[in-house]
Amino acid sequence: MTDADTTTDTGSERAGRRGGGRSARKAARAAASTGADAFITRSLTPLDIVSSEGLELLEHNAETILAEVGVEIRDYPSAIERFRAAGADVDGTRVRFPRGLCRSIVTATAPAIYTQHGRNPERNVQIGGDATVFAPNYGSPFVHDLDAGRRYATLADFENFVRLSYMSPYLHHSGGTVCEPVDVPVSKRHLDMVHAHLRYSDKPFMGSVTAGSRAADSVEMARIAFGGDLADRTVMTSLINASSPLVWDATMLEAAEVYAESNQASIFTPFILSGAMAPVTPAGVAAQTLAEALVGMTFAQLVRPGSPVVFGSFASSMSMQTGAPTFGTPEPAIVLYTVAALARRLNVPFRSGGSLCASKLPDAQAAYESMATLMPTVLGGSQLRAPRGGLA
Amino acid sequence: MTDADTTTDTGSERAGRRGGGRSARKAARAAASTGADAFITRSLTPLDIVSSEGLELLEHNAETILAEVGVEIRDYPSAIERFRAAGADVDGTRVRFPRGLCRSIVTATAPAIYTQHGRNPERNVQIGGDATVFAPNYGSPFVHDLDAGRRYATLADFENFVRLSYMSPYLHHSGGTVCEPVDVPVSKRHLDMVHAHLRYSDKPFMGSVTAGSRAADSVEMARIAFGGDLADRTVMTSLINASSPLVWDATMLEAAEVYAESNQASIFTPFILSGAMAPVTPAGVAAQTLAEALVGMTFAQLVRPGSPVVFGSFASSMSMQTGAPTFGTPEPAIVLYTVAALARRLNVPFRSGGSLCASKLPDAQAAYESMATLMPTVLGGSQLRAPRGGLA
Repeated sequence: MTDADTTTDTGSERAGRRGGGRSARKAARAAASTGADAFITRSLTPLDIVSSEGLELLEHNAETILAEVGVEIRDYPSAIERFRAAGADVDGTRVRFPRGLCRSIVTATAPAIYTQHGRNPERNVQIGGDATVFAPNYGSPFVHDLDAGRRYATLADFENFVRLSYMSPYLHHSGGTVCEPVDVPVSKRHLDMVHAHLRYSDKPFMGSVTAGSRAADSVEMARIAFGGDLADRTVMTSLINASSPLVWDATMLEAAEVYAESNQASIFTPFILSGAMAPVTPAGVAAQTLAEALVGMTFAQLVRPGSPVVFGSFASSMSMQTGAPTFGTPEPAIVLYTVAALARRLNVPFRSGGSLCASKLPDAQAAYESMATLMPTVLGGSQLRAPRGGLA
Repeated sequence: MTDADTTTDTGSERAGRRGGGRSARKAARAAASTGADAFITRSLTPLDIVSSEGLELLEHNAETILAEVGVEIRDYPSAIERFRAAGADVDGTRVRFPRGLCRSIVTATAPAIYTQHGRNPERNVQIGGDATVFAPNYGSPFVHDLDAGRRYATLADFENFVRLSYMSPYLHHSGGTVCEPVDVPVSKRHLDMVHAHLRYSDKPFMGSVTAGSRAADSVEMARIAFGGDLADRTVMTSLINASSPLVWDATMLEAAEVYAESNQASIFTPFILSGAMAPVTPAGVAAQTLAEALVGMTFAQLVRPGSPVVFGSFASSMSMQTGAPTFGTPEPAIVLYTVAALARRLNVPFRSGGSLCASKLPDAQAAYESMATLMPTVLGGSQLRAPRGGLA
């Protein structure tokens, strides 16, 4: 029984008579959801595991990566031109940033805190500062239930997950690709997904990022649902991944550009399995994550200064013997604490995946790995958390 | 594959030929165990979740409990006399302590750090300070394996757990009642348990506490095994539980007295399920835990000033609807962080159970509850950790 259930106990129920049956239980569930806080206000100081000197060294190393190695901007010349105009050194698709350039651009205009509006104003969430926002999982192509076992997800599953997140008092956000509905063609899948978030929930949600045109469709659908211009209202916070190591590609940058132009938020998230897309050490992963995220957030600020951005990190480890991704190990927890502290020093909101595991079943491995990721997510002070079950 | 296995890889194994078969693997395992560090030296600052002002208030409230409510000293008049002589107010079996009395006695003579010797000096562990010592579980009457399922434990199981702890590079201590060998009569069970620790391991261990005479037997057996007087050597750290709320009984105090007289260490541990043996609030549990532990540690210092003591806490929550004990919930994690901080302010070592769950099977519930307890144990800075599986 949840706390929320407890608060909806009526006197007659306590006296042993349960009144109303199914309809009363439905009403109680609805009340439980609508009565929940829109987000959590944090009072606990985030756990720092790296000293100020250590964080300064990581920042220095990130600047060294940006200045000496640079990043590749793949298939997107207009982004290269934006960076060149802002002071970067361009060599073909390789873009190098003088020390401090990205940081100064981001800190000059990126907001430390923004509000993401839900269709229901009571669901508006604060992103950043002392707010904590829990979102559902993102990106799983498979779902699992007792009747059908493990199988590819469908749009019906997607809609059910949206409904479940809507009903949960512990999830403040409707999420984005809560599963991958593979029964819908890719070309129109994003329309169904955004539609489901708008139709079956009034919590804030994430838009499509798989092409610039799909981001534009997401913005247009949100304009219709929210009734007007979005320039003064951020109603989507969407997930933009780097192609680690040190590559940003046209697909992601196009989508990020669309969102920034219309004042919608993006989470710039290096996706790193250490040993595969970055050095094996937590320090190496943290420095590279900072470098990659800085470039993404800089891009958004160049497109529209002041557009809301979130520093994201999706870091886990790889078995150096088999190449298999692993989750819930100590190293990514160390990375998470470290990168969260780097985000606080940059004064932007931070998002990290919160409940990761490598198991394909809801078994003991899934449970302890998920807990070993969720605990540092909470203690480290992530401000937007998207728990993610299993491998996407 | 463990880190320890990796480090014992030989060149021929890497080349694909595994030399030596079973005997080589046995030798590798032995090397893995003997090559491990005797304990962990901590570099991470413990996580504090309560402000200094909050901790001072808890200390004040603990003193209020001791001064106004007091504790009952049950069936042990000589302990009451010791407390009276030290300045306590005695009313029958009820003993009240003027504000600050217990704290001043403990801080005057209890060591902040002590060494517990193993039969093998390379296994000596530091208890307190920046050391972290992992011990195996304590007190389970049931064991579970694939062949026989869940069943009452036997002495053979006990001996196997001692062997397993000996072989594990991740356990620094042999523990105490690693399971309850119910096939041996209680009157002689402690002899077999201590014998097993001395025979099948050379790591430090815990003595019997179920009667003063059994503590004396433990000391005598240790004297034989260690070859001489123990006055200058602490070779046992044993578990003394309060009968919460606010009772210390003759059984525990007799055993603690025997250990203190021979300079052996005791862990004074209130055993609290909040809502049953203490208030439901973490603050109430923390204040009561401090009050009860202070009385136990004071007793040991009165018996022999300077004898080593550990501040212990075994706190979990109770379902207020069913009365069932629950483990791995947020409240005991809050208590653990809080009491660990109180122990640091008292400048004595701290021990907390580390891997608790309410499940009776190695399932998902067991895994996430265990992780939800072990994580705060590590982050909170417990210096002696006795993971404990399931309900004892």
